[in-house]
Amino acid sequence: MDKQDSLFLKDGERIDQLYSQDVKIIQSPEVFSFSLDAVLLADFVLPSKKSGYQIIDLCAGNGAISLFLHSKLAGHITQVELQPRLADMATRSVLLNKLQDRYSVLNLDIANIFTKIRKDSADIVICNPPYFTDLPTSKKNPNQYLAIARHELTTNLESVLATMSGLLKMNGRGYMVHRPERLAEILQQAISHRLMPKRIRFIYPKPKREANMVLIEFIKDGKSGGIRIVPPLTISKDNNEYGPEMQAMLYGK
Amino acid sequence: MDKQDSLFLKDGERIDQLYSQDVKIIQSPEVFSFSLDAVLLADFVLPSKKSGYQIIDLCAGNGAISLFLHSKLAGHITQVELQPRLADMATRSVLLNKLQDRYSVLNLDIANIFTKIRKDSADIVICNPPYFTDLPTSKKNPNQYLAIARHELTTNLESVLATMSGLLKMNGRGYMVHRPERLAEILQQAISHRLMPKRIRFIYPKPKREANMVLIEFIKDGKSGGIRIVPPLTISKDNNEYGPEMQAMLYGK
Repeated sequence: MDKQDSLFLKDGERIDQLYSQDVKIIQSPEVFSFSLDAVLLADFVLPSKKSGYQIIDLCAGNGAISLFLHSKLAGHITQVELQPRLADMATRSVLLNKLQDRYSVLNLDIANIFTKIRKDSADIVICNPPYFTDLPTSKKNPNQYLAIARHELTTNLESVLATMSGLLKMNGRGYMVHRPERLAEILQQAISHRLMPKRIRFIYPKPKREANMVLIEFIKDGKSGGIRIVPPLTISKDNNEYGPEMQAMLYGK
Repeated sequence: MDKQDSLFLKDGERIDQLYSQDVKIIQSPEVFSFSLDAVLLADFVLPSKKSGYQIIDLCAGNGAISLFLHSKLAGHITQVELQPRLADMATRSVLLNKLQDRYSVLNLDIANIFTKIRKDSADIVICNPPYFTDLPTSKKNPNQYLAIARHELTTNLESVLATMSGLLKMNGRGYMVHRPERLAEILQQAISHRLMPKRIRFIYPKPKREANMVLIEFIKDGKSGGIRIVPPLTISKDNNEYGPEMQAMLYGK
């Protein structure tokens, strides 16, 4: 690691790089590290070079997804994260990559988002929400940082979709990564919040396995019907090596 | 063709064979021929050797799907078809395959199905419905047989799902093939009619193409959530030859 880069780090943190996007991310295994979900969602977002675009990253964590998008999107990106420790990491990653002109970090509960961001003002909203419902019986990570990121402890699917819809302009695009187990619920809740599913990609861990992630693009107030199921992505080959598309996403072509 | 087999045919008809299932189907290009959809839906149905099972094939056409299931399912199969010409072909295909002990054909509008079949009496309901909404602008086949099979002229998605649900016992299984464009609508309507989507398979025509068919398994009054997206099927290879799974479905292993 660069000596200068290490000045951005606090205890227990390290810097990971996504080579395909030439970007550095401050991570901490104890607090939050980005996973393939973030890489996949960033890859799924359509590019846009409109510099006037307002882009919001909800449940931003350490800000990895929107940092991966730094060259694909040209507008202003606001990362919204509830947990102060993660918002702090995100802020330092923005500085580390010298992106402070185009990026800002809001340490905020999305329940209060409209105190800081106007309704119907965003062109693009991206979200990697907690995946798992908070049932009394569900096993949660004893690490509170990770538990909040994974389980619907502080928000839930409906709130996230309502917030995404509230933020977006008419015809704005929302992007979400989630678990296919909840596909029907996601589509139902989205439509009831004026988010029309337009494009869906299923991610399969290996050949002959069931999908374990789904990527969905919504258009606010879009026409119903006409959902496109784009080609599947299989992450690893039978020998557990990444397949060619995943390799390109991680390491570049 | 067998000389004896030809006795079952009327003008313009021929007999096609699905080799993998060792079954013969009376077809007529002018009236109705089964397509890959039928082969795929039959393949997607879970096997069951319960001889007491009541199985209904809705919108049965010339009866191809349930004939493909003759060895995978052991119960009694009722094929329900609105068009008399198709119901007549289905009846003769049953005789041709000597399956009359286990198969019956009802020439009936599914709107009137409960005059002939009791509610909540079926263990399995299978349906390959018309795919396209009947908009005033939509191009329909001038051949009325084919137009009714493809467009929602005489029934529609909601009626088909309501009928499927009405026929099924609690925990009975419904199977449908449809177009992925209508995925959100299918899931919404199904759930509102107590059919919980449980297992979904997307069918892609070739590598790098979008899905053009979806297979869905429902369980009546099943638990919500827990949808399984099973491995994708890509029908043809880049060189337009059938891939190995499709070859096995058509020609056997």
